Amino acid sequence: MNRPHPPRVAVIEAVARALAEDIGPLGDLTASLIPADAVATAAFVVRGDGILAGTACAAESFHQIDRTVKVEWANDDGDTIVAGSVIGRVSGPLASLLTGERTALNFLQHLAGIATLTSRYVRAARAGRRSTQVWDTRKTTPGLRALEKAAVRAGGGANHRGSLSDFILVKDNHLAGLSITDAVARARSMWPGRTVEVECDTLAQLHEALAAGASMVLLDNMTPVEVAEAVQLVGGRLPVEVSGGVTLDTIGAYAAAGADLISVGGLTNSAPVLDIGLDLID
Amino acid sequence: MNRPHPPRVAVIEAVARALAEDIGPLGDLTASLIPADAVATAAFVVRGDGILAGTACAAESFHQIDRTVKVEWANDDGDTIVAGSVIGRVSGPLASLLTGERTALNFLQHLAGIATLTSRYVRAARAGRRSTQVWDTRKTTPGLRALEKAAVRAGGGANHRGSLSDFILVKDNHLAGLSITDAVARARSMWPGRTVEVECDTLAQLHEALAAGASMVLLDNMTPVEVAEAVQLVGGRLPVEVSGGVTLDTIGAYAAAGADLISVGGLTNSAPVLDIGLDLID
Amino acid sequence: MNRPHPPRVAVIEAVARALAEDIGPLGDLTASLIPADAVATAAFVVRGDGILAGTACAAESFHQIDRTVKVEWANDDGDTIVAGSVIGRVSGPLASLLTGERTALNFLQHLAGIATLTSRYVRAARAGRRSTQVWDTRKTTPGLRALEKAAVRAGGGANHRGSLSDFILVKDNHLAGLSITDAVARARSMWPGRTVEVECDTLAQLHEALAAGASMVLLDNMTPVEVAEAVQLVGGRLPVEVSGGVTLDTIGAYAAAGADLISVGGLTNSAPVLDIGLDLID
Amino acid sequence: MNRPHPPRVAVIEAVARALAEDIGPLGDLTASLIPADAVATAAFVVRGDGILAGTACAAESFHQIDRTVKVEWANDDGDTIVAGSVIGRVSGPLASLLTGERTALNFLQHLAGIATLTSRYVRAARAGRRSTQVWDTRKTTPGLRALEKAAVRAGGGANHRGSLSDFILVKDNHLAGLSITDAVARARSMWPGRTVEVECDTLAQLHEALAAGASMVLLDNMTPVEVAEAVQLVGGRLPVEVSGGVTLDTIGAYAAAGADLISVGGLTNSAPVLDIGLDLID
Amino acid sequence: MNRPHPPRVAVIEAVARALAEDIGPLGDLTASLIPADAVATAAFVVRGDGILAGTACAAESFHQIDRTVKVEWANDDGDTIVAGSVIGRVSGPLASLLTGERTALNFLQHLAGIATLTSRYVRAARAGRRSTQVWDTRKTTPGLRALEKAAVRAGGGANHRGSLSDFILVKDNHLAGLSITDAVARARSMWPGRTVEVECDTLAQLHEALAAGASMVLLDNMTPVEVAEAVQLVGGRLPVEVSGGVTLDTIGAYAAAGADLISVGGLTNSAPVLDIGLDLID
Amino acid sequence: MNRPHPPRVAVIEAVARALAEDIGPLGDLTASLIPADAVATAAFVVRGDGILAGTACAAESFHQIDRTVKVEWANDDGDTIVAGSVIGRVSGPLASLLTGERTALNFLQHLAGIATLTSRYVRAARAGRRSTQVWDTRKTTPGLRALEKAAVRAGGGANHRGSLSDFILVKDNHLAGLSITDAVARARSMWPGRTVEVECDTLAQLHEALAAGASMVLLDNMTPVEVAEAVQLVGGRLPVEVSGGVTLDTIGAYAAAGADLISVGGLTNSAPVLDIGLDLID
Repeated sequence: MNRPHPPRVAVIEAVARALAEDIGPLGDLTASLIPADAVATAAFVVRGDGILAGTACAAESFHQIDRTVKVEWANDDGDTIVAGSVIGRVSGPLASLLTGERTALNFLQHLAGIATLTSRYVRAARAGRRSTQVWDTRKTTPGLRALEKAAVRAGGGANHRGSLSDFILVKDNHLAGLSITDAVARARSMWPGRTVEVECDTLAQLHEALAAGASMVLLDNMTPVEVAEAVQLVGGRLPVEVSGGVTLDTIGAYAAAGADLISVGGLTNSAPVLDIGLDLID
Repeated sequence: MNRPHPPRVAVIEAVARALAEDIGPLGDLTASLIPADAVATAAFVVRGDGILAGTACAAESFHQIDRTVKVEWANDDGDTIVAGSVIGRVSGPLASLLTGERTALNFLQHLAGIATLTSRYVRAARAGRRSTQVWDTRKTTPGLRALEKAAVRAGGGANHRGSLSDFILVKDNHLAGLSITDAVARARSMWPGRTVEVECDTLAQLHEALAAGASMVLLDNMTPVEVAEAVQLVGGRLPVEVSGGVTLDTIGAYAAAGADLISVGGLTNSAPVLDIGLDLID
Repeated sequence: MNRPHPPRVAVIEAVARALAEDIGPLGDLTASLIPADAVATAAFVVRGDGILAGTACAAESFHQIDRTVKVEWANDDGDTIVAGSVIGRVSGPLASLLTGERTALNFLQHLAGIATLTSRYVRAARAGRRSTQVWDTRKTTPGLRALEKAAVRAGGGANHRGSLSDFILVKDNHLAGLSITDAVARARSMWPGRTVEVECDTLAQLHEALAAGASMVLLDNMTPVEVAEAVQLVGGRLPVEVSGGVTLDTIGAYAAAGADLISVGGLTNSAPVLDIGLDLID
Repeated sequence: MNRPHPPRVAVIEAVARALAEDIGPLGDLTASLIPADAVATAAFVVRGDGILAGTACAAESFHQIDRTVKVEWANDDGDTIVAGSVIGRVSGPLASLLTGERTALNFLQHLAGIATLTSRYVRAARAGRRSTQVWDTRKTTPGLRALEKAAVRAGGGANHRGSLSDFILVKDNHLAGLSITDAVARARSMWPGRTVEVECDTLAQLHEALAAGASMVLLDNMTPVEVAEAVQLVGGRLPVEVSGGVTLDTIGAYAAAGADLISVGGLTNSAPVLDIGLDLID
Repeated sequence: MNRPHPPRVAVIEAVARALAEDIGPLGDLTASLIPADAVATAAFVVRGDGILAGTACAAESFHQIDRTVKVEWANDDGDTIVAGSVIGRVSGPLASLLTGERTALNFLQHLAGIATLTSRYVRAARAGRRSTQVWDTRKTTPGLRALEKAAVRAGGGANHRGSLSDFILVKDNHLAGLSITDAVARARSMWPGRTVEVECDTLAQLHEALAAGASMVLLDNMTPVEVAEAVQLVGGRLPVEVSGGVTLDTIGAYAAAGADLISVGGLTNSAPVLDIGLDLID
Repeated sequence: MNRPHPPRVAVIEAVARALAEDIGPLGDLTASLIPADAVATAAFVVRGDGILAGTACAAESFHQIDRTVKVEWANDDGDTIVAGSVIGRVSGPLASLLTGERTALNFLQHLAGIATLTSRYVRAARAGRRSTQVWDTRKTTPGLRALEKAAVRAGGGANHRGSLSDFILVKDNHLAGLSITDAVARARSMWPGRTVEVECDTLAQLHEALAAGASMVLLDNMTPVEVAEAVQLVGGRLPVEVSGGVTLDTIGAYAAAGADLISVGGLTNSAPVLDIGLDLID
C-alpha cells in the first residue's frame, strides 16, 4: 500500500458496489450478443493531459467480472500522463471487456480528474510559496472518501481529516456552544495527543486561539492581505491553514501570504473528469 | 416515490455508508466538546441559483445520527431555488446537527449540482427544439447511480439506461464482434420486447440500422449539420439520440437539427456542486 | 458472461449467503468426524431428464468452503441432460465435499428445475407457432432473481423485466390512477426510448392502447380465441404478449393464436426441482 | 417471536434484498406515472385454499418502500384460509402500493405455498398414525432458510436441522470415511449433549447404530414394510425418521408403519405457490 | 474444515470487518513512510506457554491487505506452544507486514488466549474425573462466536449451543412462563429429535425433569456435594451439566462429583490474551 | 452522541450482527415454548462494583428483536454502579425478553468490564500524578473497536488512535525501513497537521526524536526510573507516553515519574467482564 493508493479493502468494496449497480439482474444484454469465443485487447488512451489515479479500481472492475481478463499498466497513480498516450492494456473475452469498460472508466476518469485538478492547485500554490501544501477537505463524494483522498495524494496534495475521528477542528458553528478557550482546554483534556485546530475569522479569535494553545489555526474567508497579517501574528509558532473560496487564480497569493496549508473543497467535489477512453486494438 | 426522488432503500443505504466513513470509530471528536444540553436550529441556505435535489438524503443523514433531530423542508426536489433563500430547517441537539452537517451538505450540494446543470442543458436544448429531451448516461459516480439519476430527473432531464440490464445499445466496440444487422437480429431474438438502439457513426451505418429494424439510433460525434442529414434520412421512423462532446453552447444547435434525445455524460460526472450551507439560526 | 449464466457478482453473493445460513456458527458437526486426510471424488449424477443450470453456483459453493476443491463440468448451463448421466465431478478433502454438497445441490436442483420447466413450455409453445417465445415474470424467489432469470435463459426462455426500472408495463391496477392514453403519453414523455407495454383485458382497451402508441400489449386472462381476435386487430403492428393462467396444455393454443410472447409466472415460482445427486466415486 | 414466525432480523434482511433487486436503480417507472396524490386501499385476496405464512415479510415490504403505508391483517401465519377470503388490507399512496405489490406477493405466495403443502403432508401422515410428525430438510431455497422453516412450522410441520451446526446426522457418504460405530463414538466425544442421528439403509446398519448408541435413526429409501420391520427392531428405544421419495400418497403408509418423523424435501423445494392477489378496493 | 478451525466464510468476514475498522479511510499513515521497495520477513514469536488458535484469521489478515504476502505456519490451531518458540513466519513488503501486524495479532492473541484458558480448565477437570468435558457457553464476544467456539475446541473443550436454534435449554427464567413438565412436553412436540436440557436448581426440580423426560439436566450454582447427590439421583440415565461460578480451583471437585459436562462462561468472555508478538527477522 | 457513547451507526450494526449469530435460522427454540401472551418486566442487576458502559447496545438488542419491548435506564454509561443495584428495566413479551437477554448482557458485561478496569487504572495513575491520563491502544477485539473505545472513555480513560489513519506512530519495526529523523521529516511533509509520535527505547533515540521535531514520544518498556530520566530530558516540550507491561501495581510509579499518558493494551483485550444479570421481577 504505497502512499497514493487507496487501501485494498476500500477498492474491492467500491468496485463490487459499482458493478452491482451497473450490471443489473440480467447482466449486460448487449455484450451477450457477442460470440462467446471473441477475444480482444484494448488500450486505455488518455485524451487530455493530467495525473493518473484509480488504476487499482479499474483493474479490479475487470477482475470481479471475469478472472481471466488481464490488465497491465504502463503508468501508475501519481504519474503525469499526456493526451494520446496509452497508460494500460486490458485483454480477454471481448464481452467481458465491454461489460467492464464503463465502470473501469468511471473510476479512472473521476479519480484522475481529482488528481489532475489537485496538481494544478499544487503548482499554483508552490508558485506563491515553495513549502505551502494543498489540503483536501471532507467535501468528498459520499461513499468514495478513501478513493478520493488517495487521488488527492496522487495529485501531490495532502489529506486533511479522513473522518471526524481524526482530530479536533473547532469551527464557527461549534462556538455557538462554547468559547475557543474552553474548546481547546476540553479538547486537550478529552482527546490528548491530537491536533487541535481552531477556525479564526478575526484577529481577536486568532489571539484567543494562540493563547488557548491550539495546535493549528484555520483562517476562513480572509483576503490574502488579512492572511499575511495573521501569519505575522502567529509568527511561526504553529501551522496556518487557509480556506474559503480559494481558486486557482488566488491560491498563489494566499500561499505567498504565508499560508502553510490551503484547503480546497473543490478538489474532491467539483473536479471535472479527465477524459480517458478504452480503444480496441486487437 | 414520486418521480424525482430516488428509491428509499437506495437513500438509506447510501447515507449509512456515508456516515460510516465520515464519523469514524471514535465519533465526532469536536462535537463531543459541546455541552450535552445545547440545542439549536439551523437553516439550509442556498448560496447560488439552481434546482434542488437530495433532500431525502440530507434528512436521512440527521435521522441516522440521532432520531430526535427534526428536519423540515420548505422546498422539494425539482424546485427552482434562488441564492439567499432558506430551503429547510433542522433542529435538535447542537452536537448532532454539527456531526451530520457535512454529510447532509455533501449529498445536497452534489445532487443539487447535477439537477442544476441538467436544467441548464434542458433549457438550452428546448431553445433549439421544444420537444428535444436531455438524457443522462451511465457515466455516474460509482455507488451513487440511483441518486444521481434521480437528480437528473429533478433537473428536468430523462434517464438513459439505469444499468446494462435495461435495454440493448450496440456501440462501435460491439461491432468488433458482429455486424449491425446481426446484432439487431440477435437482440430481437434473445431479448424480445426491449429497445434496441444502435450507434451510427456514418450514414451507411444508419442505413444498415434502419434496415435491420433498430428501435432507436445513436448518432455519435456528428456535427449538427450531419445530424440534420441523418434525421432527414430517419424521417421520423424512430427516435434519434445524439451524443458526443455536446456542450451548453452546442446543444441548441443539435436540438434544432432534429435530435429527439441528447445525452450528456457531464450531467453526472462533471457537474459543479450547488453551494448550499447550514447556518445556525437559534 | 455468456448468455445463460448469471453475472458473476450475483453468484458470489448468493453462495456466500447460502453457505452462511447452512454452515452455522460451529461448522459442519458431522463432517468434523471424518479423518482430516480423507480425500474423495464425487460425481454430479442426474436422476431425471432436463436442462442444466446453476453450475457456476455449485462450483462456487465448494470454492468458498475450501479453495483446494476442484470442480470440473462435463456439461454447461443450457445443455440437455439425461437421467443417469454424470454432468460434473468434484474432488478434494472428503469433509469439504460433504459440507458443500447440500448447498451446491440446492442451487443446481432449483435452477435446473427452472430451466427444465422452461424448456417444456418453450417446446409446447413452438409446437403452436414456431416464433413464439416464452417469457418469465417478476414472480421470482426473493433474493434469487438474477440466478432464476439466467436459468430461464438456459431453458430457452426469454426474460421479461429484470426490475421495475427496466421498462413500463401499465397494468389494470395502474389504471385506477390514470387512463391508458394518459399513461402512454406520460411514459413517452417521462421515460423516452423505453418500451411501453399496456395490459389490455378487452378489445376496447386494445384499441385505446394501439391508438395511444403503446410499444407492446399484454393480453391478460383471454382465451385463445379472444387472443386470435386481438392479434388480428393488432395486425403485426407491435408484439403481443399473452399471460394469465397459461399451462403446458394451453400454451400451444395461445401460440397458435398468434401470441409473440407468452409469460408464465410458474417458470420461476412453481418449478419442481430437477433431481441431481452427488455420488462418491472414489 | 411466536413459533410460526421467522426471526425479525431475518425478515428485515430478506425484504431489503428483495426490494433492492426488484426496484432497480431508477425506481418503479410505471408507478411514477401515477398522480402523486392518488391514495388507495387494497385487499389481499386468497385464490385457493391453504395455510397462511409470510405476513411479516409482506408487511415489511410495504414499510421499507414507504413508511406511511398501513398494513392490517385479518389472519396470521398458521391460519387456515379459504379461496375468496380477504386476509389483510394495505392502504396508502397508490404508487407505493403498486411498487410493493409484487415483492409482497412473492413472499406470501411462496411461503403460504410451503405452509399449505406441509399441512397436506401433516394431515396425510396423521391419517396413518396420530403421533407421526412431518419434518422438513435442508433442501431449502438458498438465502431463505429462516423464512421457509418458519413456513413449515406454520403448516404444522416440524423443523429438522436449521444448519449443519445443529446436530449430527451421519449419512451414507460420511461412512466412506468411518464406520457407524466410530462415527457415533466420535460424535459423542466431540459434540457432547447433541442428537446423533444415523442413516441406516439396511437392518444390519440399524443394528450397528442401535449398538453404537445413536440417538435417532434415519431409514432412507425403505418401503413401508421394511420400515415396519425396522421400527419393530428399534422397539421404541429411540425416534425413527423415514425419508426418501415420500409422497402425499405414501406418507400415510410410512406413518402407519411406525415412523415417528417423516422428512420431505419437497416441502421447501417443490411447493407450488398458493395463489394470493392484491385487489384495489378503494 | 477440520475440527478446531472456524468455518472459512466466518474467517473471511471477520477479518474484512477488522481491517476496515483498523485501516481507516486514509490507510496506514505510518507505513506509508516506509520505502516502497523494502521487504522483510517477520516471525510470530510466542511470549507465554499456551495453546494456539487463530492462525486462519492471522493469515487472512495479511492476504486481504496484500496478496503478495506469504504466511507459513510451523504450528496449527490446537498445538501446545511454548514461550520463545516461533510458530510462523510472514514475508513480503515491509509496509504490508506493519499494516497487518496489529489485526493479525489481535486475532491470534485473543483466540489463543481462549484456547489456552480452555486447556487449563480441561486439565483441571480431568484431574477430577477422566471423562468430564469442559463446555463453553453463549457468553461470547458479540460478532466473534464462530471464532471463539473454534478456539474452545482448539483448547480441548467442547461447544455448548452455537445459537438459540440448536437445542432447547429451559432455564429458571423460562419457568416464569410454564412448568418443567409442560416445557419438556412442548419441546418434544414442537422440536422433535432435539436435545431438551432443563436447568435444575433443586432436587425437586431434578425429579421433575427426569420424570418429564429431559435429555440432559443443568445443575446451576450447586456445591460439589449437592452435585454428587444429584448425580446419584440421575443414576447415569442422562448427561449432567454443571454450571455457575466454576473456577480452576473448583472444577476438579465438580468433575469428581460426577458431572459429565461443566460449562464455564469465562472461557470466552474473560480469557486473558496469550502474548504473541511479531518480530522482524530479516 | 455525548462523549462516552459509541456512534449510533456502530451500535446498530454490532447488535444486528450479534443477534444474527445468536438467534440462528430457527429462532429461539426455548422461548417458543412460552405462551405468546406472557409478559414480564426484568431488572438489570449489578453483581459487582464498577462503571457502566454498553447501555445503548443492550437496549438496541431488545429493540431489534421486538419493537414493543420497552427499556428504561436508571444509569448511564460512565456512572459508578455498585453491586446489588438496579441499573435499568426492560418490559414486554416474556419470550422477547428471554431471547434478547444473552446478547444484551454480553454487550453490557464486556463493555462495563472495560470501563471498570479502565477506571481502576485511571485511579491508580492519578494517585501517582494528578494529570496523567490513561490511554487505550489498538489492541481491541476485532469488530468492536468503536464500542470498546467508547467504554474506555466511560471509564475515564482517553482514546489513542482509532485507526491507522488517525496520526503517525513510528515504532521500532518501522525503523527497519528508515531512521527516526527521516521518518519525522517524511511524516511532516506527507501528512501535515497531524501528530507525529515516535517510540523511543533508548535515550539516544529520544534525543533524535526531539531533534527531529516529533510531536510526542512513546517510551516503551522502560522502568519508572528510566522514564523519570527521559521525562527530565524532554523537559515539558512535548507529551510523553509510556507503554509496555504497565500494571495496576506499577502505573502509579510511571505516573509519578512524569508520564503524561500511559497506554495499557489490557484495558480492551484482557478486561474481565463486570457481572450484570437480568432478573425477572414481575
